[in-house]
Amino acid sequence: MQNSNLYNLRNFSGGPGVLPQCVLQQLSEEIINVPEMNLSLLGISHRSDWFANVVVELEQRFLQLLNLSADEYKVLFLQGGATQQFAQIPYYFYDYNKQAKPEYIVSGYWSRLAFVEAQNIISNNHKIQNPINKIWDGENIKFEHLPSQNDIVCNDNAAYLHYISNETVEGLQFNFIPNENSKNPNLLRIIDMSSDLLSRPIEANKFGIIYAHAQKNLGPAGITVIIIRKNLYENKQNLGWCSAFDYYKQAEKNSIYNTPPVFAIYTTLLVLRWMQNEIGNLQNMEKINNQKAALLYNVLDEIYQQNQFYIPQVPEKYKESRSIMNVSFHLQNAEITQKFLQQAEQQAKLFGLKGHRSLGGIRASIYNAMPLKSVELLADFLRDFWNKNK
Amino acid sequence: MQNSNLYNLRNFSGGPGVLPQCVLQQLSEEIINVPEMNLSLLGISHRSDWFANVVVELEQRFLQLLNLSADEYKVLFLQGGATQQFAQIPYYFYDYNKQAKPEYIVSGYWSRLAFVEAQNIISNNHKIQNPINKIWDGENIKFEHLPSQNDIVCNDNAAYLHYISNETVEGLQFNFIPNENSKNPNLLRIIDMSSDLLSRPIEANKFGIIYAHAQKNLGPAGITVIIIRKNLYENKQNLGWCSAFDYYKQAEKNSIYNTPPVFAIYTTLLVLRWMQNEIGNLQNMEKINNQKAALLYNVLDEIYQQNQFYIPQVPEKYKESRSIMNVSFHLQNAEITQKFLQQAEQQAKLFGLKGHRSLGGIRASIYNAMPLKSVELLADFLRDFWNKNK
Repeated sequence: MQNSNLYNLRNFSGGPGVLPQCVLQQLSEEIINVPEMNLSLLGISHRSDWFANVVVELEQRFLQLLNLSADEYKVLFLQGGATQQFAQIPYYFYDYNKQAKPEYIVSGYWSRLAFVEAQNIISNNHKIQNPINKIWDGENIKFEHLPSQNDIVCNDNAAYLHYISNETVEGLQFNFIPNENSKNPNLLRIIDMSSDLLSRPIEANKFGIIYAHAQKNLGPAGITVIIIRKNLYENKQNLGWCSAFDYYKQAEKNSIYNTPPVFAIYTTLLVLRWMQNEIGNLQNMEKINNQKAALLYNVLDEIYQQNQFYIPQVPEKYKESRSIMNVSFHLQNAEITQKFLQQAEQQAKLFGLKGHRSLGGIRASIYNAMPLKSVELLADFLRDFWNKNK
Repeated sequence: MQNSNLYNLRNFSGGPGVLPQCVLQQLSEEIINVPEMNLSLLGISHRSDWFANVVVELEQRFLQLLNLSADEYKVLFLQGGATQQFAQIPYYFYDYNKQAKPEYIVSGYWSRLAFVEAQNIISNNHKIQNPINKIWDGENIKFEHLPSQNDIVCNDNAAYLHYISNETVEGLQFNFIPNENSKNPNLLRIIDMSSDLLSRPIEANKFGIIYAHAQKNLGPAGITVIIIRKNLYENKQNLGWCSAFDYYKQAEKNSIYNTPPVFAIYTTLLVLRWMQNEIGNLQNMEKINNQKAALLYNVLDEIYQQNQFYIPQVPEKYKESRSIMNVSFHLQNAEITQKFLQQAEQQAKLFGLKGHRSLGGIRASIYNAMPLKSVELLADFLRDFWNKNK
């Protein structure tokens, strides 16, 4: 049996993200035997005390890292991905009688999908047209940058404000909380942090719901983390949606209303243990992530200034919009892009660098568990490939 | 690193079911490295060719085992568990304009939940009362047996007929297809086979939808298999539900509309490979499962006749309703039940025998991968414990 694989740590794929080697090692062993239970991880019942403790510990670690109180917030672990939340949120938080529209920021590929899904859900369930205020749309600027604080003006009676903190395709990341100085102190902010939750500190208590699928920074595909203010679901079962996703029912049962994906939840716990034991806190995590991102952007900008060999998706002049999770850029044509990808894999052993199918080009995703060392190798390869092909 | 754990094969839990030892072994290795990809299983992209092939092979194996044509049927792998389907099916297949009610058989704990969920979904979305025909309810006979063929009479214009083939709590399993000789040849039969899909042959083409969560006979929790007749979704997007669960959208994308749980799907493939390579077909699987069930029921009936020390949940006179997957029985009181469970674990090393929380008592779940040898040990223990305590 192979005990490690160096290449796991050189996987720049947009998702799934790299998982720490120690987590993979422990999973490999516990697929056969979890010592406390003397059973395979896959044989342990979700109704066992052991698993109940896994959920409790995982919830505590999320609240601790985000500096949230368990009196005010609940953490749920549900299935269906962020796409499920795209649909459920408008179903839950749109109230036909109040005539208050949800507001969406469309800042890239994923937030456009969230907007379209919400529009379909509300239109079809309430037989109305244009039920949503799109308060910003970056499509006409080809998603080259994000809005500024002044661009975002919410209506006082908005049902809620939805946005995505980090767009993985374009490599755009919010560095401020939209509508932070809203005249409406009760504005319900709902944020999809699928690709940057726990990558840096946030003022989590400014949000009603923070949700994130696990497969970037948190764990494997198959589980979605929902951090929700308790007063948003207390005594509010929504019987027209599905019980397996009902915030109230799942909160009441600590995410075990129906059978949860034990493997994915446990893996996420191992990742959070790694983070708290090895990295410490989100301030430290941010420092490391900033350092990794700077390594790549510096090379890209430097070479761009010389001969535009690499073209960053988000130009240097908009660097406050640049993502520290996903660094997207282009080469001059498809041929040289192909050559780049091939040599990256075959010569430098750097994998998963192909850009998203909707945008093409190159994308280096450098989530939490991507080691600085691997990013240094990529920066070296960027220079090297340029030198040989400029 | 431990390479095997004998006790994994003595886990009689109601779910998750036992997985073959060879599957656990391969997973343990591939969590570190999948040889064809030179990456951790958890690092492989769901957009890779490798994973597309996993899905294709898995679909083919299901169709092959069930003797279904790929022209007529599609196999989807979705999240949310059977509970998600409990909600989605009425949302999709109830048509308010047609005034045709869905029909439900309530034969135990789980089918009652399916019925309640469907009632809530339709009532709340269409603002109507009692939208469902409950055509049989075993509650007043305490779910001691199933209906007979003559008990089931569907309306000619039923929206669909829903039932659950095997009730894991009570240990009841259908041995016939309800309303098989219906005057309505187009009756849409929808069956939840979460706990007995691939445990024996069925006439699969009598069903419009066969669905099953994986965590009994098929794989780990986190994935639901949906075998659906293509004409039920073709050109029928349902925009009021969630895109991640839309049969049409997921079929079009081969279950990769949004990020699927790669680990759970791949594990299911390994289980089906094991089944086809080691067992061969469903006829063989049924023989083995019948043999295992007979071992336990024979001991229980024999001892019941002598002094009612063990009381089968489904009496011998209703043996045509007995499940070959879940053998439920009771002892005289809580004290002796506790003693039984304790000695089973500590002395005989037989685990997971505690009955479902709603019914108490003892339950031996003997899914596909539970070895005959382990069931023999349990049969021996049943005799032994009786001898010492009768």
